[in-house]
Amino acid sequence: MREGLLDEMEPQQVADIAGQLETDDAVALIEDLDREEQQAVLQRMEPDDRAAVEEALSYPEDSAGRLMQRDLCSVPEHWKVGQVIDYLRSTPELPTDFWEVFVVDTSHHPVGTCKLSTILRTPRDTAVADVMVREQTLIPVDMDQEDVALRFQKYALVSAAVIDDSGRLVGMITVDDVVHIIQEEAGEDVLLLSGAGGEDINEPVPLTIRRRLFWLVINLGTAILAASVVSLFQGEIGRYAVLAVLMPIVAGMGGNAGTQTLAVAVRALATNQLTESNTIRAFGRELTIALANGVSLGLLIGAGVALVFGVIHPTPDGFRLGAVIGAAMVINNLAAGVGGILVPVTLERLRIDPAVSSAVFVTTITDVTGFFSFLGLASLAGLGR
Amino acid sequence: MREGLLDEMEPQQVADIAGQLETDDAVALIEDLDREEQQAVLQRMEPDDRAAVEEALSYPEDSAGRLMQRDLCSVPEHWKVGQVIDYLRSTPELPTDFWEVFVVDTSHHPVGTCKLSTILRTPRDTAVADVMVREQTLIPVDMDQEDVALRFQKYALVSAAVIDDSGRLVGMITVDDVVHIIQEEAGEDVLLLSGAGGEDINEPVPLTIRRRLFWLVINLGTAILAASVVSLFQGEIGRYAVLAVLMPIVAGMGGNAGTQTLAVAVRALATNQLTESNTIRAFGRELTIALANGVSLGLLIGAGVALVFGVIHPTPDGFRLGAVIGAAMVINNLAAGVGGILVPVTLERLRIDPAVSSAVFVTTITDVTGFFSFLGLASLAGLGR
Repeated sequence: MREGLLDEMEPQQVADIAGQLETDDAVALIEDLDREEQQAVLQRMEPDDRAAVEEALSYPEDSAGRLMQRDLCSVPEHWKVGQVIDYLRSTPELPTDFWEVFVVDTSHHPVGTCKLSTILRTPRDTAVADVMVREQTLIPVDMDQEDVALRFQKYALVSAAVIDDSGRLVGMITVDDVVHIIQEEAGEDVLLLSGAGGEDINEPVPLTIRRRLFWLVINLGTAILAASVVSLFQGEIGRYAVLAVLMPIVAGMGGNAGTQTLAVAVRALATNQLTESNTIRAFGRELTIALANGVSLGLLIGAGVALVFGVIHPTPDGFRLGAVIGAAMVINNLAAGVGGILVPVTLERLRIDPAVSSAVFVTTITDVTGFFSFLGLASLAGLGR
Repeated sequence: MREGLLDEMEPQQVADIAGQLETDDAVALIEDLDREEQQAVLQRMEPDDRAAVEEALSYPEDSAGRLMQRDLCSVPEHWKVGQVIDYLRSTPELPTDFWEVFVVDTSHHPVGTCKLSTILRTPRDTAVADVMVREQTLIPVDMDQEDVALRFQKYALVSAAVIDDSGRLVGMITVDDVVHIIQEEAGEDVLLLSGAGGEDINEPVPLTIRRRLFWLVINLGTAILAASVVSLFQGEIGRYAVLAVLMPIVAGMGGNAGTQTLAVAVRALATNQLTESNTIRAFGRELTIALANGVSLGLLIGAGVALVFGVIHPTPDGFRLGAVIGAAMVINNLAAGVGGILVPVTLERLRIDPAVSSAVFVTTITDVTGFFSFLGLASLAGLGR
């Protein structure tokens, strides 16, 4: 909708609106325009605002530099609280919304922050350095916005100082600019894992069709791979069609178990709960769970199949069939657990977003393992000979 | 970890810690204790703190009442800014962290909010009523925390007034208490959809095993249902085993397409983008996408199968087989699109969290439709006769 509106407007109108916004919001407005339109708008802005926006646009997309505003309130560390109050009252060009004052040393490095409530409630002759909070979370200007959001969340920040390579204060980020990132980044995983990445229900339909089709075609490739495993056992299936009836159960259950592990791993990676230091522990954990649930499900389905095909409709192969499907279920659950954690962890190490492509790998693993273990064991057990 | 520590501590120690916290944090500490331990801790707290915590515990879990703190800064609307400043400076029992002052009328109804930066930057003799923001987001005390989080996000709030049934100011919620809810609620969907709901990697393993096994057993039931559809066509499969090779492709691709639609719908419902007013539009949108991608995939797989089984390894049924799998692919994609949006929307109407149980329904729909349409059409086309 915003893009539609911007297309209708003259560059001068966009420039006027951008001039009234805080830097970060002006950047958000302008960054989606194409290069030519950006220039047309920037040329029509006030020199100060223009410089601020141009600087912000020089930082990588989705970085702290794009998110921050340059207008902030900083005071030298030797000031008294009274001086800060007088400065705030007498300086009209300060931003309208700020929650903390940043205290800096003579070379403009942040040394602490002071909440406005602290300033309001401290006697005028107290030194700022005596009431400021020295422990602060500094945001490097090139930090990815997802990491910025994690810091805000972890330390319950309302605003944070942004510093350049040499540690100098260059801007601030406030929580209102971060809340939507937290929500988007956390919500994105469910879309990415399902192969509907980045989509929302207001996206143009042709774009959605192309995006989803891309993933479906990749999935078609993996489905054909799994089918080719089945085709190795056409002889057995032709002689004993019950194998075809039962094989989707083994493959599908592995897929379900793999997706559970995968979702937990992807969330844990996104929230920095799963790191290099605890990967092995997490792997052991998933293996234990996979073994426990694989044995439970294997006993359940094995007993059920033996009952149906060995007792209720007695066939000579009924009990062997039960043993085969039970064993295949255990094997495929283990494959699901191993794949569900190893695939996202490996992708993360390779600096590929694990939410984007893990699901394809994991379901391929569980389909192939499911079909191969069940039909292979059946063949070994002489079923369908 | 917190629970483990609390178990080790004497009620008096817990009471001392709770007394030093803001109400919302004290509540978070105490609410997970069992009834008896809660009483023991509450009895050892200061009467004021105890009353505040007891009142908070009287609100439903996950409601604004649990999340809010009762300590806040409110001033009458007829005050001047100078009076507010003097009040803030001279009242030691105000909370340490606050970002806005709430302005109330004589019956303690909120009429506006005033940022501390505004108070600091306005002349002392200006009336608070002239600089306060009158448009404010009031949070009813019984509002669900997920809705509270959505409001904070939508209106970029830093703090908000909480009101009781009669509209009186009873507390405030600050953004630091909401950020983790935004993250949790948004991240939860991916876990819920995969059947690993509420889990994190630090949960005790036996609990995780039970939780996941519960969903896997439900999925086993639906897998058996899908398998029973296959069993209707054992005769055809026995005579023409290629059907067993290809059938997982149709079922699996429907599952993938259904999961895409489902993920988008669940996110849109969670963020209030999909509401009663645009359900029909969203349904039409999904149907269009499903038809487009179904036809693309149907043509692709249909042509591929006809090529392999009609030309490369010529069999008499090769071209018919291609037509059958192509048609089944279109049908199952439509089923996936319809199911992927109707299931979560229906569950939402029935006040069941669509993230929790949608996936089971949708994959059951796509498995059953996939097997039935492919094998049924194959049978009608005389394949495997």
